[in-house]
Amino acid sequence: MDNNDKEARHNRAMEKQKAAVDAGVAAATTDRGVAVLLTGDGKGKTSSAFGMVLRALGYNQNVGVIQFIKGVQLSGEEHYLRDHCPDVEFYQMGTGFTWDTQDRSGDIAAAERTWEQAANMLANPQLDLVILDELTYMLAFKYLSEDTVLKAIEARPEHQSVVVTGRGGGSALRSVMDTVSEIKDVEHAYRAGIQARKGVDY
Amino acid sequence: MDNNDKEARHNRAMEKQKAAVDAGVAAATTDRGVAVLLTGDGKGKTSSAFGMVLRALGYNQNVGVIQFIKGVQLSGEEHYLRDHCPDVEFYQMGTGFTWDTQDRSGDIAAAERTWEQAANMLANPQLDLVILDELTYMLAFKYLSEDTVLKAIEARPEHQSVVVTGRGGGSALRSVMDTVSEIKDVEHAYRAGIQARKGVDY
Repeated sequence: MDNNDKEARHNRAMEKQKAAVDAGVAAATTDRGVAVLLTGDGKGKTSSAFGMVLRALGYNQNVGVIQFIKGVQLSGEEHYLRDHCPDVEFYQMGTGFTWDTQDRSGDIAAAERTWEQAANMLANPQLDLVILDELTYMLAFKYLSEDTVLKAIEARPEHQSVVVTGRGGGSALRSVMDTVSEIKDVEHAYRAGIQARKGVDY
Repeated sequence: MDNNDKEARHNRAMEKQKAAVDAGVAAATTDRGVAVLLTGDGKGKTSSAFGMVLRALGYNQNVGVIQFIKGVQLSGEEHYLRDHCPDVEFYQMGTGFTWDTQDRSGDIAAAERTWEQAANMLANPQLDLVILDELTYMLAFKYLSEDTVLKAIEARPEHQSVVVTGRGGGSALRSVMDTVSEIKDVEHAYRAGIQARKGVDY
């Protein structure tokens, strides 16, 4: 195939793809905030949520961030928000992983305190984007009432987007989400004996 | 099961999990930059890469970002980097999607110009993190030599991490990656007629 043929074939393929993309764009007419679930075992759930924080801040939107579980060890995202984003509402449960605390009642009390903050954010029409990082574990361990959580997500202001991260999540949670991405762990540096990396993994 | 039983069962399960986690942490002894591929059809690849940018900046690391394809339409990440992160090296191919340009030779020339910037970043020991957003399409379309790209990724400074995003990617690319996450599109708001959302999707 000479270069002209390649160009012609390329153009035909691209015209077809453009038509499909344009039709999709034209069909999407609803303008409202979305609920996004990032789940699965692979690397990229929390980092994706924080990429959306960065995007939203790029449009000067108002952002709220809740981190369930996390908050004992410092992370790049915590450093960044505290040092550079004083306007982002940021709350961490701060207990660490449940296998570190080994204290079920204490974890539940902390989860409930953290949920109060989350519920306030989900009810706040000033916020364009709310991140509920690692929320799924609170549901999996039954530290929070699934019914309460799902109702608050559904009742949020129409223009507000919400991003939930964490493994699992269950069918009830998925049913109130507009977008669900399942991040599959195909390979992880960790299994090759490479340490978690500052700025990448935390 | 009464509450004491629940606590005891919980503690046994958590002790077991903690032992497994601790053993994994102890086994990871290699300290170097990692190569991460975020691929698959689902939402979250580019946003995850930018979450790592935010993390790295939280540790005052030096970051370089290349966006292949993108750059015709403004995005939240572009706004944010230009307005708030003058120290981040940022380069966009700026041609838009291949189905919009419908110009194969022009796209190839643009890809090669963009690759020059990427190659410079991958050779720069000052940079802790390099993002190569949507690079996989340049390989899929054969706009860039896979051999050249993989060699540059492999030859980068030892402490430098690199994140590649985009659908596909192929087995040769995967073989030089330490971490591979495949983001599966379980559900997308777009298919329910909801428009792409500022601060979430772009």
